[in-house]
Amino acid sequence: MSARLIGVGTGPGDPELLTLKAVRAILDADVIAHFLKRGRAGNARAIVATHWPETAIELPLPYPVTTEMHRHHHGYKSQIAGFFDESAHQIAEHLDAGRTVAVLSEGDPFFYGSYMHIHVRLADRYETEVIPGITSLSGCWSQAGVPLMQGDDIFTVLPGTLDVEALAQRLANTDSAVIMKVGRNLPKIRQALEAAGKMAGAIYVERGTMQNAVVMPLAERDDAPAPYFSQVLVPGWAGRP
Amino acid sequence: MSARLIGVGTGPGDPELLTLKAVRAILDADVIAHFLKRGRAGNARAIVATHWPETAIELPLPYPVTTEMHRHHHGYKSQIAGFFDESAHQIAEHLDAGRTVAVLSEGDPFFYGSYMHIHVRLADRYETEVIPGITSLSGCWSQAGVPLMQGDDIFTVLPGTLDVEALAQRLANTDSAVIMKVGRNLPKIRQALEAAGKMAGAIYVERGTMQNAVVMPLAERDDAPAPYFSQVLVPGWAGRP
Repeated sequence: MSARLIGVGTGPGDPELLTLKAVRAILDADVIAHFLKRGRAGNARAIVATHWPETAIELPLPYPVTTEMHRHHHGYKSQIAGFFDESAHQIAEHLDAGRTVAVLSEGDPFFYGSYMHIHVRLADRYETEVIPGITSLSGCWSQAGVPLMQGDDIFTVLPGTLDVEALAQRLANTDSAVIMKVGRNLPKIRQALEAAGKMAGAIYVERGTMQNAVVMPLAERDDAPAPYFSQVLVPGWAGRP
Repeated sequence: MSARLIGVGTGPGDPELLTLKAVRAILDADVIAHFLKRGRAGNARAIVATHWPETAIELPLPYPVTTEMHRHHHGYKSQIAGFFDESAHQIAEHLDAGRTVAVLSEGDPFFYGSYMHIHVRLADRYETEVIPGITSLSGCWSQAGVPLMQGDDIFTVLPGTLDVEALAQRLANTDSAVIMKVGRNLPKIRQALEAAGKMAGAIYVERGTMQNAVVMPLAERDDAPAPYFSQVLVPGWAGRP
């Protein structure tokens, strides 16, 4: 009996960007849990598909709500908290039976990952391990081939959900940045970058490291909503060694 | 003949945190270049040691100056620029001979990595690929088991070389942060965190994912200089789902 909870980063999409440690954890797991949107196959599941052990018990955890519901909606927080409570409960039942449970997490488990919500509910009661993964950030800037920061540069990760003024002010006060949660926010992001004088170097990346990746200057991207896997890179690199 | 330049992320230290793609690139390389401090074995070289192909040509690139010289010193920039010029020249000679050159980069090549300086000098002339790696950030927060950010949180990477006022102001204006370049800056970092009201949750991590890793509340760490591989984590997580 070796009950263990393992958060396993699966990286940004390319199955070859799994770490040796993640592959080993998947092969050794008694139970593999993974988050997914209702009615979809699950991205993390797809990334590890070739390593999935036949004997593993699969525990799919479908989100009860989607990004379509605004996160400040009064029902959102209680629904999502209830979902994480219930998911942790299901995982704990396997742990109590002495099983090792690997929880897949796209990108890096502790970089805006759903696994964190399981971790904070169970880590004080069970032996846990977190296996870091390649973040979507690294996936996107490697795909673009654009270095963003060096030396003593300040680097900021900003959500595209901020209002124009806040976004512009923060862009002006950092050397380099990545804007996540692009979605329907492209017109606003563009406006903020213009205000901060940083539109010229900005790069739009969609599905970094995946087969259908898109990289283009943000100036050439139209304002149509961006898919979930998209980011705007704002390089800070300028005239240094 | 398949001249190709590949920036290979080796991750933060644990050899099992190499990606499948990095291992393949190392096994297939004709030449493996790696940066190192003069007189040292080279960290990236050590991380990939078990995968090093017998037939590969080794190209060590020892830094001409160390962190002991202040980076605003008038001689620093020209020395370091000359070093990157010369390193790129040596790599280009191998590329011109039709060889595939893997340049090892601790962590992620495009996250404050020396490889970037080679990339900007050669990527327009040769076929290039960047294989992202696990950053030192992911290594440290996974080692600590402390989630830093979620949802719409703003996350900032700050160098410990900033002055107290700038550091305090930026810590106050972000949800979560990691402070790099800790070195001799611990007293200043502590002062800035106190001023920003964020000392309580701050975590000190040394050599994340390595065998001699250290994790402790920053409040319990003395002010003795920190080794190169150390960071201060400032969690932003607070009372959400």
